[in-house]
Amino acid sequence: MKIVGNVNIDMPWQDKPEECSMPMWRYSENPVIKRNPIPGVARIFNSAVAQYEEAYVAVLRAELIDGRPHIYIGHSKDGINWDIDKDPIQFVDENGDDYQPLYAYDPRLVKVEDEYFIIWCGDFYGASLGMAKTKDFKTFVRLENPFLPFNRNGVLFPKKFDGEYLLLSRPSDSGHTPFGDIFVSRSKDLVYWGKHRHVMSSGGSGWWQTLKIGGGPAPIETSEGWLMFYHGVTNTCNGYVYSIGSVILDLDNPAKVKYRCKNFVMTPEEWYEERGFVPNVLFPCAVLVDGETGRIAVYYGAADTYVGLAFTTVDEIVKYTIGNSEVVGDQATEGRM
Amino acid sequence: MKIVGNVNIDMPWQDKPEECSMPMWRYSENPVIKRNPIPGVARIFNSAVAQYEEAYVAVLRAELIDGRPHIYIGHSKDGINWDIDKDPIQFVDENGDDYQPLYAYDPRLVKVEDEYFIIWCGDFYGASLGMAKTKDFKTFVRLENPFLPFNRNGVLFPKKFDGEYLLLSRPSDSGHTPFGDIFVSRSKDLVYWGKHRHVMSSGGSGWWQTLKIGGGPAPIETSEGWLMFYHGVTNTCNGYVYSIGSVILDLDNPAKVKYRCKNFVMTPEEWYEERGFVPNVLFPCAVLVDGETGRIAVYYGAADTYVGLAFTTVDEIVKYTIGNSEVVGDQATEGRM
Repeated sequence: MKIVGNVNIDMPWQDKPEECSMPMWRYSENPVIKRNPIPGVARIFNSAVAQYEEAYVAVLRAELIDGRPHIYIGHSKDGINWDIDKDPIQFVDENGDDYQPLYAYDPRLVKVEDEYFIIWCGDFYGASLGMAKTKDFKTFVRLENPFLPFNRNGVLFPKKFDGEYLLLSRPSDSGHTPFGDIFVSRSKDLVYWGKHRHVMSSGGSGWWQTLKIGGGPAPIETSEGWLMFYHGVTNTCNGYVYSIGSVILDLDNPAKVKYRCKNFVMTPEEWYEERGFVPNVLFPCAVLVDGETGRIAVYYGAADTYVGLAFTTVDEIVKYTIGNSEVVGDQATEGRM
Repeated sequence: MKIVGNVNIDMPWQDKPEECSMPMWRYSENPVIKRNPIPGVARIFNSAVAQYEEAYVAVLRAELIDGRPHIYIGHSKDGINWDIDKDPIQFVDENGDDYQPLYAYDPRLVKVEDEYFIIWCGDFYGASLGMAKTKDFKTFVRLENPFLPFNRNGVLFPKKFDGEYLLLSRPSDSGHTPFGDIFVSRSKDLVYWGKHRHVMSSGGSGWWQTLKIGGGPAPIETSEGWLMFYHGVTNTCNGYVYSIGSVILDLDNPAKVKYRCKNFVMTPEEWYEERGFVPNVLFPCAVLVDGETGRIAVYYGAADTYVGLAFTTVDEIVKYTIGNSEVVGDQATEGRM
């Protein structure tokens, strides 16, 4: 099991604790971002991290003391301790004019070729994907909204396929969406999107992902396929519970699922996951991976209140996913109807 | 008030009855398609008509005796009496292979340049737009689904703007959608769509279009702008009521509304509109227009059971729309967020 082509300097890491029976384990000093991290910001969670110039940069879902979410930038040498900007990202349009979303949440951050892309959920007459690009984390240029409402959980693949960008998304409604599958769409120019395909459904034999699912970090290219962490949601008498799942998509056509793990790989159990603004939420948004060692660090939002960090290796998670895989619906097809 | 560039031979027509105080009047022999029109088909409604080779062709929403909708073709010399094919359209994919939707409903039919396009609502892991093209009404080639689910009421503009197709649509959910605005999207190639803009919201000062709205016939190019009929829906204790509204969009940028009529222009009142499978539904899907006389014939579904026909003139409907216009939300902007 090999990761294709990523090297991360000084990547956060802890070895697997002996008592851990699951394929993923938590950082012992979690949460890495705590409540009231800077003045005016009550909580940071559901945030994404990427390597940039021998260090790390994060796009942070910061919920202000008025309850609205905006995206802030953070910088870190080690991926654990963060310097957070005191103001949200100021986006501009294609002409350089100020172009701020009313609100923005659950950002993903993906490098494709020499550009970094931020994809978030904002308001386009309803919950919809917003998108911006940057090369220097100083100027952030908004792109056309890729899709009509209603949509969330937009995740770019980190490389192009036949010259086309691939964007995962989860069509939804404008509320606390009680349904949802993952789709993938293609674009040559980040303006016009098409060739939409269904990737995977909520459901499965287990009960942890029966209500809805949504993409998480950018997929990781491995020798077995695109390894993707995602969130799976079940409903209870006291609300939704969000766990982390893993799936391996076909290398050449990621609309096809090769292996889908029937068990969650992590579910809320620590105090910072069970307690908070929205209890019982694990929401993975980013990974750092090291091709040489196969190490993987997963950043996840915990209880809509904290940022947590968890670890695995490509060997461990791929073997677990394959060893516990099940077929759900027509996942092996490319999902065209 | 002038219609730009359409000539229709032997177009259905009746003059306005003296007692009619509204800007649109019904054909006296309605409904033009009645129950059980051919063996195996229980009802035809929400269907679209276009001129083709000195006669008329229709794409018909036919609900079979098993309750599922499929699209049938009809032919007519006069636009009133229809010969209906005994089997539904057999669609093929880009390679000529059989490619049938599981079901298809509410078809629109629009000629752009030398091709006719059918847009319908079908199943793409949820209610979504399907699309096909034909030049001869013998071979129907399906195109890529333009959008992710969930969406309905796809309506093409009958001409390109700067080389781009424009497609109106109404993002929705997969059920009896209790919300909905009209958007417009652009494509150079009918494969990739983007530059999505919000056209108009449900709402307004009246109560007939408060729940949701959706595009109807292809917009009509007039000297005042793009004249568009649409459906507006209100909710009652006994279900939804669908009326017909009219709006005039900017000629150069139809994402902007110039005039929006605050009153419905037609609402269910005849027996074939108030009674049927879904009582109290008027659902306009097509127009025939004659540039020389300014005559307009509107085909509409009645009570999800019949096809009805109504008339107006460009002079009458444009003056009424302008004379009774109101501003709803940010309709005058191009609706980018």
